[in-house]
Amino acid sequence: MKAKIGENVLRGEHVVIEDNVVIGNNVTIGHHVVIKEGTFIGNDVKIGDMVVLGKRPSTNKKMARKPQTALSPLIVGEASTIGSGAVLYRGSSLDKGAFVGDLTSIREKVTIGEDSIIGRNVMVENNTKIGSRVTVQTGSYITADMIIEDDVFIGPCCSSSNDKYMGEGNYRHAGPIIKRGAKIGNNATLLPGITIAENAIIGAGAVVVRNVEKNQTVVGNPAKGISKKKES
Amino acid sequence: MKAKIGENVLRGEHVVIEDNVVIGNNVTIGHHVVIKEGTFIGNDVKIGDMVVLGKRPSTNKKMARKPQTALSPLIVGEASTIGSGAVLYRGSSLDKGAFVGDLTSIREKVTIGEDSIIGRNVMVENNTKIGSRVTVQTGSYITADMIIEDDVFIGPCCSSSNDKYMGEGNYRHAGPIIKRGAKIGNNATLLPGITIAENAIIGAGAVVVRNVEKNQTVVGNPAKGISKKKES
Amino acid sequence: MKAKIGENVLRGEHVVIEDNVVIGNNVTIGHHVVIKEGTFIGNDVKIGDMVVLGKRPSTNKKMARKPQTALSPLIVGEASTIGSGAVLYRGSSLDKGAFVGDLTSIREKVTIGEDSIIGRNVMVENNTKIGSRVTVQTGSYITADMIIEDDVFIGPCCSSSNDKYMGEGNYRHAGPIIKRGAKIGNNATLLPGITIAENAIIGAGAVVVRNVEKNQTVVGNPAKGISKKKES
Repeated sequence: MKAKIGENVLRGEHVVIEDNVVIGNNVTIGHHVVIKEGTFIGNDVKIGDMVVLGKRPSTNKKMARKPQTALSPLIVGEASTIGSGAVLYRGSSLDKGAFVGDLTSIREKVTIGEDSIIGRNVMVENNTKIGSRVTVQTGSYITADMIIEDDVFIGPCCSSSNDKYMGEGNYRHAGPIIKRGAKIGNNATLLPGITIAENAIIGAGAVVVRNVEKNQTVVGNPAKGISKKKES
Repeated sequence: MKAKIGENVLRGEHVVIEDNVVIGNNVTIGHHVVIKEGTFIGNDVKIGDMVVLGKRPSTNKKMARKPQTALSPLIVGEASTIGSGAVLYRGSSLDKGAFVGDLTSIREKVTIGEDSIIGRNVMVENNTKIGSRVTVQTGSYITADMIIEDDVFIGPCCSSSNDKYMGEGNYRHAGPIIKRGAKIGNNATLLPGITIAENAIIGAGAVVVRNVEKNQTVVGNPAKGISKKKES
Repeated sequence: MKAKIGENVLRGEHVVIEDNVVIGNNVTIGHHVVIKEGTFIGNDVKIGDMVVLGKRPSTNKKMARKPQTALSPLIVGEASTIGSGAVLYRGSSLDKGAFVGDLTSIREKVTIGEDSIIGRNVMVENNTKIGSRVTVQTGSYITADMIIEDDVFIGPCCSSSNDKYMGEGNYRHAGPIIKRGAKIGNNATLLPGITIAENAIIGAGAVVVRNVEKNQTVVGNPAKGISKKKES
């Protein structure tokens, strides 16, 4: 099937739209954009220049965890905005009003909730769930198998990991869980499998090696508690 | 008005030049470059492949600070070099001889001084002032509302922040101020609002939580002074 | 000479292939790809969208170390995979089965061994040697003049440096040496000139300021030893 394109779609130059793509009404598409097979784009979406939507994952011999090949199409929810140079994979979805910055890439099987902001140059790995009204600032790295609940704030250049044994094999990986309302300072480091509880605050540059309690503030390397907010 | 293009301009394939663009003499433009409405490009500029020049900022419902919409055109000063895959916004300017690396993005209302080097994969936020002969190495993050004076050296992968309360609202943000000749080691973390004085040295991996004096060297998390150079 | 293109090559739209390029059989080339003068691409290579292959280095007045201009063509070994938005320079080579992620850039005079994985958004500087079966995860920074031996694992967002005096001049630079089988945790910081010996383990967020012994594990800022594995 050829692509199905809505009304009032503004299309830049040298745009490539593959088969089975569905594009809603009032969509703006920048120059040199590539929309790959089957991608669904809602109404009122704005797409920057040189964006790739709906990429399929690839692999090589050394990769222990092979990417899934049966993936549903990428869904770009209505009124979302995609920055220039972004690369979004098949099998993921953005809810209504989400924002994705320039040069950001989101792998397969990621869900991003309503009105969330994924800043510029952010890399999100596969199988990660990001809630609504979340902010992930510029340059942060969101590992695979991670859960980020609603209203979380992640400052710039934060790093996370899901692989305790660093490439030793194909055992179960576990990314951090960041619970509702927690805030992570810039360039913080999160180790695999930890939970950062509701409304906790992680200081800039902290290296978080164990769970952080509700309302707790931690700083340093390794991160230690400095105070606890009253429960609200 | 259609674009005004100087003499001896080498233009790659599939280049898009929007209206009111002005391009000087002896300019080289790579393949798939997009030069957006009104952008001014001086003489002897070299532009890599897949570059976007003059992007307008975008926003979503969740963003507390809305970007300015009345912005003067992007100015790319004479003899500047722009790497492949870079995304530069409207409302900013590069002085003569500036260098911008591949996959780097510079937001609106940024000024970059003469002969400064902004390396590959550097993200510069809006409203930031970068002096002359500054080096910002690969992968560093320059937050909004920051001042970087002349002859500063910022190593690779440094991070800065301007938002003490991490997304709590639309109060005044303040990025770090880095004064003339200071040097920042790789992967250092700078907190909001601090001043790093003239010729100070920040060690690699340091987390700088308070002001650093002239000629002082600091290291660690949190960063502490280890020595002070004689004033020169 | 015009490009020489093998059998069964799938070519996307708006692809630019410059003179003297050689492309093997069964190669897949995405949309908007730029293959620059002289690049050699082996059989069974897969190239994503918006990739630049064979870029020549550029410079400005302020750069102390001028890039070499006499460079052999980029060699993309057979069965390699290149992600979307990647920028690879002339003078480098990928061995058989190597994997390069999206939005990654590799400078000139870099060699990458068989089956190695260079993740998304990784920046590799010039004159660096990466062995076989190495993993460099998303967002890591590999400085110039670095040696990474076989079977090394580098987690996400690691940073390295080769310039002890931070831009003071054109003296000899020395990147870290990471020996066979060592593992580096996420967001670790490596200082110039250090050696990380065989099978050492660097904890997440560690700041490594001196050599690390064989089988040693180090953590913290500055990194200190916490245990030593039995030699195997």
